[in-house]
Amino acid sequence: MMKPVNPALAATFSPPVMEARRWLAGISFPPERPLINVSQAAPVDPPPEGLRQAIADAALNRPEAHLYGPVLGNSDLREAVAEEFSDAYGGKVQPAQVAITQGCNQAFCAVIQTLASAGDEVILPTPWYFNHKMWLDMQDIRAVPLPCGQGMLPSPEQAKSLIGPRTKAIVLVTPNNPSGAEYPAELVGQFYDLAQETGIALILDETYRDFDSRPDAPHDLLTRPDWDQTLIQLYSFSKAYRLTGHRVGAIITSVERMDQVEKFLDTVAISPSQLGQIGALWGMQNLRQWVAGERLEILARKDATMAAFAELPGWRLKSVGAFFAWIEHPFDLPSNDLARLLVRNAGVLALPGTMFTPDDDPTGAKHFRIAFANVDGADIAQLAERLVNFQP
Amino acid sequence: MMKPVNPALAATFSPPVMEARRWLAGISFPPERPLINVSQAAPVDPPPEGLRQAIADAALNRPEAHLYGPVLGNSDLREAVAEEFSDAYGGKVQPAQVAITQGCNQAFCAVIQTLASAGDEVILPTPWYFNHKMWLDMQDIRAVPLPCGQGMLPSPEQAKSLIGPRTKAIVLVTPNNPSGAEYPAELVGQFYDLAQETGIALILDETYRDFDSRPDAPHDLLTRPDWDQTLIQLYSFSKAYRLTGHRVGAIITSVERMDQVEKFLDTVAISPSQLGQIGALWGMQNLRQWVAGERLEILARKDATMAAFAELPGWRLKSVGAFFAWIEHPFDLPSNDLARLLVRNAGVLALPGTMFTPDDDPTGAKHFRIAFANVDGADIAQLAERLVNFQP
Repeated sequence: MMKPVNPALAATFSPPVMEARRWLAGISFPPERPLINVSQAAPVDPPPEGLRQAIADAALNRPEAHLYGPVLGNSDLREAVAEEFSDAYGGKVQPAQVAITQGCNQAFCAVIQTLASAGDEVILPTPWYFNHKMWLDMQDIRAVPLPCGQGMLPSPEQAKSLIGPRTKAIVLVTPNNPSGAEYPAELVGQFYDLAQETGIALILDETYRDFDSRPDAPHDLLTRPDWDQTLIQLYSFSKAYRLTGHRVGAIITSVERMDQVEKFLDTVAISPSQLGQIGALWGMQNLRQWVAGERLEILARKDATMAAFAELPGWRLKSVGAFFAWIEHPFDLPSNDLARLLVRNAGVLALPGTMFTPDDDPTGAKHFRIAFANVDGADIAQLAERLVNFQP
Repeated sequence: MMKPVNPALAATFSPPVMEARRWLAGISFPPERPLINVSQAAPVDPPPEGLRQAIADAALNRPEAHLYGPVLGNSDLREAVAEEFSDAYGGKVQPAQVAITQGCNQAFCAVIQTLASAGDEVILPTPWYFNHKMWLDMQDIRAVPLPCGQGMLPSPEQAKSLIGPRTKAIVLVTPNNPSGAEYPAELVGQFYDLAQETGIALILDETYRDFDSRPDAPHDLLTRPDWDQTLIQLYSFSKAYRLTGHRVGAIITSVERMDQVEKFLDTVAISPSQLGQIGALWGMQNLRQWVAGERLEILARKDATMAAFAELPGWRLKSVGAFFAWIEHPFDLPSNDLARLLVRNAGVLALPGTMFTPDDDPTGAKHFRIAFANVDGADIAQLAERLVNFQP
């Protein structure tokens, strides 16, 4: 064993997406039955040509596009995010309450660093987003699981019973990864009230907000007085504008907390990618209609997924939304074993529920996450057919 | 005071470069005597046109330039780094021993996370690079200062006396930021021996290696058997190729440690910027001659700085190299007070030594870091003239 080694990092599990990719090694898929890959929560196509051109123009003609920028992000992008969230949520967000990060994962790491240290606790509804759990693990912060119930929704009452003297935050991801569940505005409001009453933070990760099926604002928290003393809102530009390779995300919270965020980002990042920020701003200014069309396509795929699983004997769809469905399988084997057999016998790559649940939680073994965003209606039908014929 | 707050982060000092920028607020500099900015350790001009064109072409024509890549970086860039370090240092580095990060700061954070956790210790020669100190502070890892002596070089004997049961690593930055000192190969070898004997890691940050004045390899560590069990080498593409705004750095160490690095990078970054990696690879393949020319220009500025300070009554140049000189001032005021007066009275922005030293170390107050990389010979003469006439 190598030394020295940080035991907290050594005990953290390995990146699930990289592990799943390794399951494909050595397996060939015949042309008439190609792999159906429903493992990825990310676009597989590049952004529209206009955005690519905007990035290329900046690379050629804007010297500052290659040089350090401000730690908390470019002011034009911070202003655009403040305006967008003010408009969309009916509250008032100031540019100084916005920071740009190298992707939304980094946004989460940064805000956790402002809140908690070794020995503290953070409440995560389960199934959780694995990178959230990994960051807490490696920082020696205890992730307190809050198992979701009916409709894959977490309960504020149950959360209340988990809050102790070391609890620093509750994390909600809505629309959820991995379950797809869209948390009702009222439920989000109840969690906010709980956080405010108990003096902890509510971290609200809305990476998938652009694909929410609801026409209205998904919560009213930004209209509440002193919202920034409790709420930490996270966002990603990766999904809507297909900018995953540029790493651009955002934090919205109090200016006071931003001073702490700035220390973390200066040390880990110095500044976010300039070209990524330029692309994100161009997207916000020019791709509103295009994103609206993308959303409709994703919602159509969601409907196709619901329809396909409604007819699938033994399989049960528990929740669905944004890019994801959370489904129960009918077999006695655990999902982490089944996942490899699905690759081999059915030509389907999906992440097992065990990647999203604590080791001692048996529900992970019963479920899969299906990321349907990259498969069209015909492929979803094909997926259903392969699953109904699948024998482990 | 906001709550909750992580006390370790709250106790970490604020980003020094951002603080120094604030000193300029409200001060105007007449056209006949513009600000001489020797605070920045970064290029102020964009990369050569060929590199900008390569990035623009990729943005337009390579779909994968916008999408997630492998957590540890693109294999072509990892191969190029392995080849370059094998060639330049006379050892054998495998691509699997290389990881690409979002800048060299992140490389440092990642490797520290693999080595140490709260309560552990890491030895940093002083003056130190402030972001190293900040990361250790916020992780609750104790930075053990190792004061540099003659020629601003650290002593292996003194380091040995500081190693205790919680010590996990020694960090060397060479050429050094802030002092500019180029550590002799023999000295680096002695630190390696010490680290190996005591079972700790030697982190060697060579961000400024492309501007080292010495023609030969700056150390022989990569030729030693099992080097990767002790050595963690860091590198940055930001300085040589002027890619600061893209955030691309590298780690070279054992494959075993890379498994741990991968967990950290997956969680904080997911993957490095694709366009940054494409630019870095293009630079390595096409800009060797250009970088050689840049190096000669920097070495000429170093000579001009040495000449200017040799004649400056009261001021003493303690060490110089890469982008930096470490100079002692002749005044009774501490450098952090003088720094603001230098802006106001002399039109010079330089970082005070206090930004690079522990609070209880009096040497910081006596020194400044002069980053001369962005000022030409005429401006260096002008800088010297302003300093000799400066009265606090």
